[in-house]
Amino acid sequence: MKLYESPSPNARRVQVFMAEKGVDCERVAVDIRGGENISEEFLAKNPGGRVPLLELDDGTCIAETMAICRYLECLHPEPNLYGETPLEVATVEMWQRRVEMLFMAEVAGAFRNITGFFKDRETCVEEWGKVCAEKAPKALQMFDAQLADNEYLAGDRFSVADITLAVALDFARMVKVVDLPDLANINRWYEVVNARPSLSAT
Amino acid sequence: MKLYESPSPNARRVQVFMAEKGVDCERVAVDIRGGENISEEFLAKNPGGRVPLLELDDGTCIAETMAICRYLECLHPEPNLYGETPLEVATVEMWQRRVEMLFMAEVAGAFRNITGFFKDRETCVEEWGKVCAEKAPKALQMFDAQLADNEYLAGDRFSVADITLAVALDFARMVKVVDLPDLANINRWYEVVNARPSLSAT
Repeated sequence: MKLYESPSPNARRVQVFMAEKGVDCERVAVDIRGGENISEEFLAKNPGGRVPLLELDDGTCIAETMAICRYLECLHPEPNLYGETPLEVATVEMWQRRVEMLFMAEVAGAFRNITGFFKDRETCVEEWGKVCAEKAPKALQMFDAQLADNEYLAGDRFSVADITLAVALDFARMVKVVDLPDLANINRWYEVVNARPSLSAT
Repeated sequence: MKLYESPSPNARRVQVFMAEKGVDCERVAVDIRGGENISEEFLAKNPGGRVPLLELDDGTCIAETMAICRYLECLHPEPNLYGETPLEVATVEMWQRRVEMLFMAEVAGAFRNITGFFKDRETCVEEWGKVCAEKAPKALQMFDAQLADNEYLAGDRFSVADITLAVALDFARMVKVVDLPDLANINRWYEVVNARPSLSAT
């Protein structure tokens, strides 16, 4: 098993997930800045041109961060990161997707369209980047309200939703295109999750 | 159990999913055009302000289309729509997300930003809508290539990925903001899946 990775938030989500599971594998660095992910060789493995990508020993390739994590969850069910009961499974998925779509995707949209980081390969619209930058902080208010009554985002168990939020927050802090509000419950939660070896070491 | 729904592609995904599972429940129509989904009463149920929303008998609310479907999958495992083996689970998730992010989200971005359908509540950037409209058809080429060698998107079993693609394609045809290429494998696949009672009746 080989993990194709780069210094990207999605690759980090898989790295953290693997560390939580206590599994490891060969790593292959992909130079996304230089366009290695859109080379013919890489597109043959992942026509979506995205990193991370997990290649199994028989050559089968699994793309998409959440598909890779679900594969690892099936192979290594403990510690559980996607929930156990039907309601917990749904709750984890609900928060995981809210973080991805209402926060992480907006931060990414702001970053790509404002900085033009990938302008060699995509059309950037700065005005749209600013719209994304305005939307992203609003989602954090929702997460802060949820964390007022819950230790972790999806309840009393650390889950993949927490991994996505911690990684997305770190990315947002690094790229500095979104004004991040100072929110007490998120701050309390971040201190706890960021102290986990899986996050502090990646 | 109550399903809050509207004439939206995401609500239809849940309707199709429920029909496949042979389950039903009370339906509550939400007027998203009139802003009922962003009313105080609805936001108390779903702070994300989105439809569909599943309310359980004890008042617990599950938002996010895929969270609702996963809840139903846990309660009613047959027919399986999310895969069984670790590799199948990963493959379904991979294609499901590719359809959502590389096609459905781009169609939605084109629709909202070009037509200004929700301009009473969000900033629309027409130039961005045009970028989305250009990207969406490219994803269909990828799905067509996959369907050249596979009966369904994730292999030989009908899955939630097929539901998402069929619903997103119907939505794209209806809103007419994206030029849809005529692709033989997608056409063959569409004829098969669209004949399923779950899709033809919703």
